Amino acid sequence: MSRPTNRAETTGFPGRLKAVRQALKQKGLDCLLVASPENVRYLLGFTGSSSWAFVSADDAVLATDSRYAEQARCQVQFGRVCVTERGLIDFAARHAAEKGVRTLGFEPNILSFSTCRAIEARIAEPCIDRRIVPAEGIVEALRAVKDDAELALIQAAATLADRVYVHACSLIRCGMTERQLALEIEKWLRENGSGPLPFSVIVTSGPNAALPHAEPTDREFAQGEPIVMDLGATTGGYCSDFTRTVFLGEPEGSLGDVYHTVLAAQQEAIRGIRAGMRAPDADELARSVIRRAGLDAAFGHGLGHGVGLAIHESPTVSGRSTDVLLEGMVFTVEPGVYLPQQGGVRIEDTVVLRDGVVQSLTCAQKRDPVIPLRRTD
Amino acid sequence: MSRPTNRAETTGFPGRLKAVRQALKQKGLDCLLVASPENVRYLLGFTGSSSWAFVSADDAVLATDSRYAEQARCQVQFGRVCVTERGLIDFAARHAAEKGVRTLGFEPNILSFSTCRAIEARIAEPCIDRRIVPAEGIVEALRAVKDDAELALIQAAATLADRVYVHACSLIRCGMTERQLALEIEKWLRENGSGPLPFSVIVTSGPNAALPHAEPTDREFAQGEPIVMDLGATTGGYCSDFTRTVFLGEPEGSLGDVYHTVLAAQQEAIRGIRAGMRAPDADELARSVIRRAGLDAAFGHGLGHGVGLAIHESPTVSGRSTDVLLEGMVFTVEPGVYLPQQGGVRIEDTVVLRDGVVQSLTCAQKRDPVIPLRRTD
Repeated sequence: MSRPTNRAETTGFPGRLKAVRQALKQKGLDCLLVASPENVRYLLGFTGSSSWAFVSADDAVLATDSRYAEQARCQVQFGRVCVTERGLIDFAARHAAEKGVRTLGFEPNILSFSTCRAIEARIAEPCIDRRIVPAEGIVEALRAVKDDAELALIQAAATLADRVYVHACSLIRCGMTERQLALEIEKWLRENGSGPLPFSVIVTSGPNAALPHAEPTDREFAQGEPIVMDLGATTGGYCSDFTRTVFLGEPEGSLGDVYHTVLAAQQEAIRGIRAGMRAPDADELARSVIRRAGLDAAFGHGLGHGVGLAIHESPTVSGRSTDVLLEGMVFTVEPGVYLPQQGGVRIEDTVVLRDGVVQSLTCAQKRDPVIPLRRTD
Repeated sequence: MSRPTNRAETTGFPGRLKAVRQALKQKGLDCLLVASPENVRYLLGFTGSSSWAFVSADDAVLATDSRYAEQARCQVQFGRVCVTERGLIDFAARHAAEKGVRTLGFEPNILSFSTCRAIEARIAEPCIDRRIVPAEGIVEALRAVKDDAELALIQAAATLADRVYVHACSLIRCGMTERQLALEIEKWLRENGSGPLPFSVIVTSGPNAALPHAEPTDREFAQGEPIVMDLGATTGGYCSDFTRTVFLGEPEGSLGDVYHTVLAAQQEAIRGIRAGMRAPDADELARSVIRRAGLDAAFGHGLGHGVGLAIHESPTVSGRSTDVLLEGMVFTVEPGVYLPQQGGVRIEDTVVLRDGVVQSLTCAQKRDPVIPLRRTD
């Protein structure tokens, strides 16, 4: 195991391991079994799957199988790599016995019921009081607040989202299909440096725009209709999340007004959110604007969610969340209004709380949603 | 709820629901909570996420939130759609109470420990003996054996894999990087009709080919080295999985011999596997060939895995599996040999057991792995 310098101990992987060890001490745990792939990556730098980390006061281990052994040895700088012979559950039991672990913390929101039961059965030993203890959210809480290196990666992924939006707007014309545009967005992102996309690009148009998470179809864009583009990129594993709604020519019916209501709601939240605010209060900033327009029943989801190594992570920014928004947290601000059979509008930016206020990481213009009419050649 | 015809009751969604109901009866369960997205899709046709299905003797319900409500109403033909107001756990408790469910089966390999505990706490009622019961693998066992419609979709995804391999071979030349080739493969698949790829395309070359699951790097292809391409497509949600190893010019060192050993091992398995065979016996068909060449220590993974709505599903084809290979099952046959610092070879086809024997769904040639030398222009 490498010996970090003092400076390194407070940042990067050593700093993260140190913070986990402090949490273990506070909770009276001898060791934490980390199973979430994003948590494993955050603590040890390993980017593969099918691997668990074990962190105790004097040790950090990545347990993996032979498929990932070489990769793990290259990537894990601040921990040992152990190649399992009989699977991860068997390794957990052996590791706990070897280290004399009495209380093995686990992530109850990640591990399946079956896996917990199997570990419990395997770690039992006569005359030794060894047990597994649910310890939810230790690493997630650390991950929610980003350091400078993480912010730089999210900013890069956010800039890719901004840039592909400009490209997409240059392509949109009557007769183009949702699926064609989604594929062009996907290809541009991958050709311009995005890692694997964090989710399949969403493009919905006309009445389909009333479906917040629909898959793109072969429906053709037509004059005056809304087109919702929800997309993200990844850089070094870190995600961005971004949505714009545009109209091909002047909006038909009431959706133009809806657009400006949703935009006003988003801007109210972006202006008003402060470090230290409770998540429901942040959600209410946007929701109250939509309520005043009589559209709150059509805003069925929360205001946003944390973004980082996962596309959905801590904090949850909704009316029922118990999270508090802290300096350094990265999350989305994405109010939406969905009118069945008519269409919908969503506007989403990935933002960070910096110097106590919201700073947008995605910055593509949203003041003017109208794209000039063009026809497919 | 639609009323299927008698014929439809034995196939498609009605047939699947009927089979689940038979399993519930056998296990003494009043209702099954289905949480795996693939299982939900298999039973009710819904392709979104964040949704659970509840199947009982007289009912089939998709519970989802407002984001997916419209989509669910379009997609679910043989069941009711309920939009949750307070989340899925709350809905599960209400549904169990409304239906008078005493024993609620759940998927212990899918649901997290926390979710199980939360459901348990919520369904408890004074004076009513209502409990949750682990019921693993009911839907997975059905999914393992494919019907004709599923086979047609997997065949289409397999054909895309074959075709992109021919395209990839036409592009490979000295100086091209792993990352460039992986991106070309990804783009071709998406442009030619694949749905979202089931996993990120793997391209490894030279010594990197010793890493079975490495991410593509900026390493340039050079003469005589192995290049491993592991890729898959999806059609209508169904996956294919396919690997070929090629050499750019005549293979250097012993890897040419290794290639022919791995190919012989794969062909031995494809020729020898029969419906009714235990999975470890199938694995041993290939492993014995590699063992005779003195290379079994370098074949660290199992022979294969089931493929369908998920890229890894039942059956598991390995030495420790308890599965039996049945008519209609689709799985991979993918022996590999990995020599640290030197390179590796893997050859993988997606196959089906039909008329008792193995039939390959991916068919790209593998007899001659040598690609003529070309230079980047």
